[in-house]
Amino acid sequence: MTRVFNFSAGPAVMPDEVLQQAAAEMLDWHGSGMSVMEMSHRGREFMSIIDAARADLRELLAVPPEYKILFLQGGGLGENAIVPLNLLGRAAPADGHAPTVDFIETGSWSVKSAVEAKRYANVHVAATSAGNRFTGIPARDTWKLSAAPAYVHVCTNETIDGIEYQFVPEIGGDTNGAPLVADMSSHILSRVVDVSRYGVIFAGAQKNIGPAGLTLVIVHEDLLGHALPICPSAFNWKTVADNDSMYNTPPTYAIYIAGLVFQWLKRQGGVAAMEQRNIAKANLLYDYLDRSAFYENRIDPQCRSRMNIPFFLADESRNDAFLAGAREHRLLQIKGHKSVGGMRASIYNAMPIAGVQALVDYMQEFERVQG
Amino acid sequence: MTRVFNFSAGPAVMPDEVLQQAAAEMLDWHGSGMSVMEMSHRGREFMSIIDAARADLRELLAVPPEYKILFLQGGGLGENAIVPLNLLGRAAPADGHAPTVDFIETGSWSVKSAVEAKRYANVHVAATSAGNRFTGIPARDTWKLSAAPAYVHVCTNETIDGIEYQFVPEIGGDTNGAPLVADMSSHILSRVVDVSRYGVIFAGAQKNIGPAGLTLVIVHEDLLGHALPICPSAFNWKTVADNDSMYNTPPTYAIYIAGLVFQWLKRQGGVAAMEQRNIAKANLLYDYLDRSAFYENRIDPQCRSRMNIPFFLADESRNDAFLAGAREHRLLQIKGHKSVGGMRASIYNAMPIAGVQALVDYMQEFERVQG
Repeated sequence: MTRVFNFSAGPAVMPDEVLQQAAAEMLDWHGSGMSVMEMSHRGREFMSIIDAARADLRELLAVPPEYKILFLQGGGLGENAIVPLNLLGRAAPADGHAPTVDFIETGSWSVKSAVEAKRYANVHVAATSAGNRFTGIPARDTWKLSAAPAYVHVCTNETIDGIEYQFVPEIGGDTNGAPLVADMSSHILSRVVDVSRYGVIFAGAQKNIGPAGLTLVIVHEDLLGHALPICPSAFNWKTVADNDSMYNTPPTYAIYIAGLVFQWLKRQGGVAAMEQRNIAKANLLYDYLDRSAFYENRIDPQCRSRMNIPFFLADESRNDAFLAGAREHRLLQIKGHKSVGGMRASIYNAMPIAGVQALVDYMQEFERVQG
Repeated sequence: MTRVFNFSAGPAVMPDEVLQQAAAEMLDWHGSGMSVMEMSHRGREFMSIIDAARADLRELLAVPPEYKILFLQGGGLGENAIVPLNLLGRAAPADGHAPTVDFIETGSWSVKSAVEAKRYANVHVAATSAGNRFTGIPARDTWKLSAAPAYVHVCTNETIDGIEYQFVPEIGGDTNGAPLVADMSSHILSRVVDVSRYGVIFAGAQKNIGPAGLTLVIVHEDLLGHALPICPSAFNWKTVADNDSMYNTPPTYAIYIAGLVFQWLKRQGGVAAMEQRNIAKANLLYDYLDRSAFYENRIDPQCRSRMNIPFFLADESRNDAFLAGAREHRLLQIKGHKSVGGMRASIYNAMPIAGVQALVDYMQEFERVQG
């Protein structure tokens, strides 16, 4: 068996150790005689799994005690609707009009999020980099925030565009204390985060956490209990929080895998250690891209993502040859998103630096032969 | 390693063969060098997996071509809200009032479903067996259906109460052609179903299909395109259908496991063959319960579930001893749901008849020693 280097944007590469453990335990978890996917979610075996996962995540991200950690069904797109369904009841204007939500548009995912929120709220785009084809983040001092929005939504790492916030925007002074909601789907656990600066952090699992079909929500307890009456019970954060993510059957196997990833992260030294490795991995690829005239990354260097690195061949007629050669070198899933084109290397926590080095080596070889 | 006999109501027992294959393929699916949970959902490898799963399910349930098969994120409770969100746009009365939905209450799940629908519709309980503590199904000729409901909702197998429809209710003549919506979560694929008699069939995966976090929807194409404007994109059946369940990232690993279960079912001879085995398994346990004065099943014999068999010890002070002894015999997760009490044996497709025999043997032994 030869494992590949898998640069998929998500679902994405998992640590070998996690997959090996999952395979070994598939028919018999810890002598229980059951697979984790066969366990009642209310049985003592699975309860121990979800409790450990929650505690490990709290430790890894230093989540303060006044924040709840929720394991929800679904993914990022669904959560983009579930966020307003949970927060808008808090801020309904007395005149009966729909509340306002502020969005900062920095790429495909923040734009998609605004589309979902429009079903329930007035969406105010407080800043957008659409005019720059989403190659950067509008400077904080250009944001035109509302005086009292229900919340301000940012996507702190744009998976498709390759944009990452390197700062936490201060918004409270301009917005009468509105909470900051951050979609961290594609960079959660890749860098140290000060959770206390956010009202809500959410993330689909299938990049740095585990299998698709699980969404993580970290929410300040003051923001619970304000769902709109139309919010389904299964997605009502207060109900989920009050029942320790067990109001309905959670995606048990995905939570088990996430728990194994959290244990693996702790063995790697935690999030701060991972961040240093992620900086080194990203620098390796960006430095090469910046040195080469054969390849190009078009993102403002202040806003470049460490996780998702889009790049273009200067001569795009060679794209197919580049991808075919990559496949021969067992470097897979490098084709860019169809809305951006070109190539994209997603280098999440589980991608070893050897994988990034193998990609750079191949790119150099391709440039030498074809250039 | 000793596998147990696992009578959990869900998540529930899986076929050993499926788990063995999943373990063997965990780090390298078919020479791809990737785990299925690492694959891009849009890559050719996963596309082949979901296409095969859809085709196998269509064959197993003889789903007519005018029905779409959807793989959705989430579970049964969430789907209980997603059903009205998708169907109520079709039937909004001209006077601006909320449309009416008819429910047949036969146990915990049909009652829970009505609670979710009440957020969006007038709920009319057309019949209920609450007065009989949910030990049967109200006779069809007692149902007081609305003249033109948006749809009629039934739960064709009540997991908690142990009730199963042994008939398909005809409703069209009384309701001006309203579609019949069936929650088949806990008995889908356990018996032959005439799909054409239903407008919508849905099922959470974690009983007879696969891991929790996946919901299957089989919907007549005429019922697509009528979602309420407040329905999130990720849960809009029309959007999901138009994108072959790929509008957002589906729960890829759960779909892979479901596909392995479908292949296993085909090797067992398909649904008709499983139904014969399920009848034999259920008869084995019910016949013993009916012969014994030590144990009791309280469900109308015409409505007994083949999948979920609740029973009581005549002397309930022996419950703890019964459960402890069962655990020693590696017969697990037999405790009844807290709302019903007593015991419950869930004997889904993957439970072999040897498991039911082992349970009956243990029950006889316990009766002999304690009786």
